Amino acid sequence: MPEFSPGLEGVVAAETAVSEVDGANGRLIYSGGYLIEELAPIASFEETAYLLWHSELPGKTELDALRRQMAAARRLKESAQGVLSSIDPKVDPMDTLRTVVSAQGATSTLTKPTLDEAIALTAVIPTIVAASHRRARRMELVEPRAELGHAANLLWMMEGKEASPDRVHWLDTYLVLLADHGLNASTFTARVIASTGSDLTSCVVGAIGALKGPAHGGAAYAAATMLEKIGSAGNAEAWLQDAHARHARFAGFGHRVYRTYDPRAKILKEMAKTAAPDLYKTAEKTEEIALRILHEAHPERPNATNVDFWAAVVLTGVGIPKELFTCIFAASRVAGWTAHVLESLADLRIIRPASVWKGPQPGTKPLPLASR
Amino acid sequence: MPEFSPGLEGVVAAETAVSEVDGANGRLIYSGGYLIEELAPIASFEETAYLLWHSELPGKTELDALRRQMAAARRLKESAQGVLSSIDPKVDPMDTLRTVVSAQGATSTLTKPTLDEAIALTAVIPTIVAASHRRARRMELVEPRAELGHAANLLWMMEGKEASPDRVHWLDTYLVLLADHGLNASTFTARVIASTGSDLTSCVVGAIGALKGPAHGGAAYAAATMLEKIGSAGNAEAWLQDAHARHARFAGFGHRVYRTYDPRAKILKEMAKTAAPDLYKTAEKTEEIALRILHEAHPERPNATNVDFWAAVVLTGVGIPKELFTCIFAASRVAGWTAHVLESLADLRIIRPASVWKGPQPGTKPLPLASR
Repeated sequence: MPEFSPGLEGVVAAETAVSEVDGANGRLIYSGGYLIEELAPIASFEETAYLLWHSELPGKTELDALRRQMAAARRLKESAQGVLSSIDPKVDPMDTLRTVVSAQGATSTLTKPTLDEAIALTAVIPTIVAASHRRARRMELVEPRAELGHAANLLWMMEGKEASPDRVHWLDTYLVLLADHGLNASTFTARVIASTGSDLTSCVVGAIGALKGPAHGGAAYAAATMLEKIGSAGNAEAWLQDAHARHARFAGFGHRVYRTYDPRAKILKEMAKTAAPDLYKTAEKTEEIALRILHEAHPERPNATNVDFWAAVVLTGVGIPKELFTCIFAASRVAGWTAHVLESLADLRIIRPASVWKGPQPGTKPLPLASR
Repeated sequence: MPEFSPGLEGVVAAETAVSEVDGANGRLIYSGGYLIEELAPIASFEETAYLLWHSELPGKTELDALRRQMAAARRLKESAQGVLSSIDPKVDPMDTLRTVVSAQGATSTLTKPTLDEAIALTAVIPTIVAASHRRARRMELVEPRAELGHAANLLWMMEGKEASPDRVHWLDTYLVLLADHGLNASTFTARVIASTGSDLTSCVVGAIGALKGPAHGGAAYAAATMLEKIGSAGNAEAWLQDAHARHARFAGFGHRVYRTYDPRAKILKEMAKTAAPDLYKTAEKTEEIALRILHEAHPERPNATNVDFWAAVVLTGVGIPKELFTCIFAASRVAGWTAHVLESLADLRIIRPASVWKGPQPGTKPLPLASR
């Protein structure tokens, strides 16, 4: 019997060319062999999604075609619109996203995942996120605008006015940085669902459910909440010492794979200086003290700041309310989810691990049954 | 670097006391150490679900309480009813199930999975399945009846009349047999989603998506379709030889774990004699010839009949149309999905396996970007 590795830590579950997390060296490699720090300053989300789907960057013709195809796929089908308007506007926006994506992708016959579907699902997520945002505030929904890029259109649909180029750039960079990250739990969920021969919508809906967890996509929300409670740089030491004494976890620190500074966190931290200068001061001091406390308590652990900590600061600077952080994460990661599913089709084998029995052996207990 | 096991075959992903598939000996052990062949003749689905959730069988008081709680949870919330009525009645019933379960379980704040939620989700699935069935036929929906058991009420809501005790018994036995089966792909999906700290509805919705695949829950539909095409015992030899010559797979044969006859298939086969006597004749001959052909082609492989083959025959005998087979499977397996999720909460650790990079190393390709 092979050894049990809780959380499948270190167990290889796939060979992939979509992305590679080189945790020991703090490197994130995207499809084609590009380091995240090479790509982030110059690529748009659309280019990044194309890269993950095709393993190469688009030329101008391919990029224009992709932008047109995405712009044409931003509207919900009538049935999905009906589903959206039946959902209580007060539910978690991730629950709305999970339900409306499921409705948008419903079909009468089972189809193998295709690139066109991947593009359509990626294109429509901002529409659902913006609708959740406006419905919660009892505001009329805003129609998408085909001439706007993915990030700019998302902010347009949320706010009903065009966002500044800076805000679009920060959001776009966030979307590039979070688009894929090896076999994280939501991507792995998508691959497990795909392995049964199921459809792409089922894969994405399952991945949305996994992303929702506070140990995964929900972490940026927790980091934003912690920074709100801390309130100012001057309060960080007292707040964190108190939290540490109560054995509370610091949101935004620690990661399964990185043993050194997460390269995405580095880029977001730099961007946060201009995107959210006031919050940056609180966050910078919080990071310094949190790392010091964690290192003193566990000198053996590599307690590096994770991407969610600085993502929370940047997204706040973009003007995204924290209840939407996980949805915005989904709007980015869907590119990776779908790229992984499409890649896995080349050699589909059902993912069905083994388990170790810890219950009683047969014959141990009698069968006391009430009904018959 | 550890070895890559495609499909995680033989990799231990959990310790569990919910069920154990002892493939080498053809045994399925349910919670408490009960063999499936001890339990199936005497337990109802409600008793089985209780067993999986509590690791022991209910007494009369506990069983009555569970039945009341389930009966009270059969109605859709108003929002989920709205979602259901927005969905095109022609879509795959599994897509309707995925979407309406997602809507039914939507909440404003993230909650840890509870037994009450497990009971509520299990109770409501037949309502959605029956609604799909009737909406596709433009028939009025039928209200659940609290005094009927789970299986009887499912048939009542589908048909608007009470089913015979025999049909109820066959369906109930099917629901007992399929309620759990180790770390199958949909259960594993639920556990991966739960591992992020996400909610129970997200786990079940993801599991529904995984079950939909033809290599998993979709297999009984495929087996029924194959038996329809074969049509009669006399046609089995010619049809199967022809299919084999075209390298077509025989639906309902082969399993990752069993090396001998699946004990559930044995029970279903016996029941099929009375549940569907005509189809039994075709199926029995089909099985005999398929096993012979498969054994001749691959004498080294254990090509046993799997549960889906005889499930297709029994469910046909119950009067379930084959488009609903996977949904009925979900109505059973939801007990196992939720039991696994609840069990996993005791020691939650994010499931995040590793991958092997097969893309180019950084620095290999230049960065040709169109946009900036």
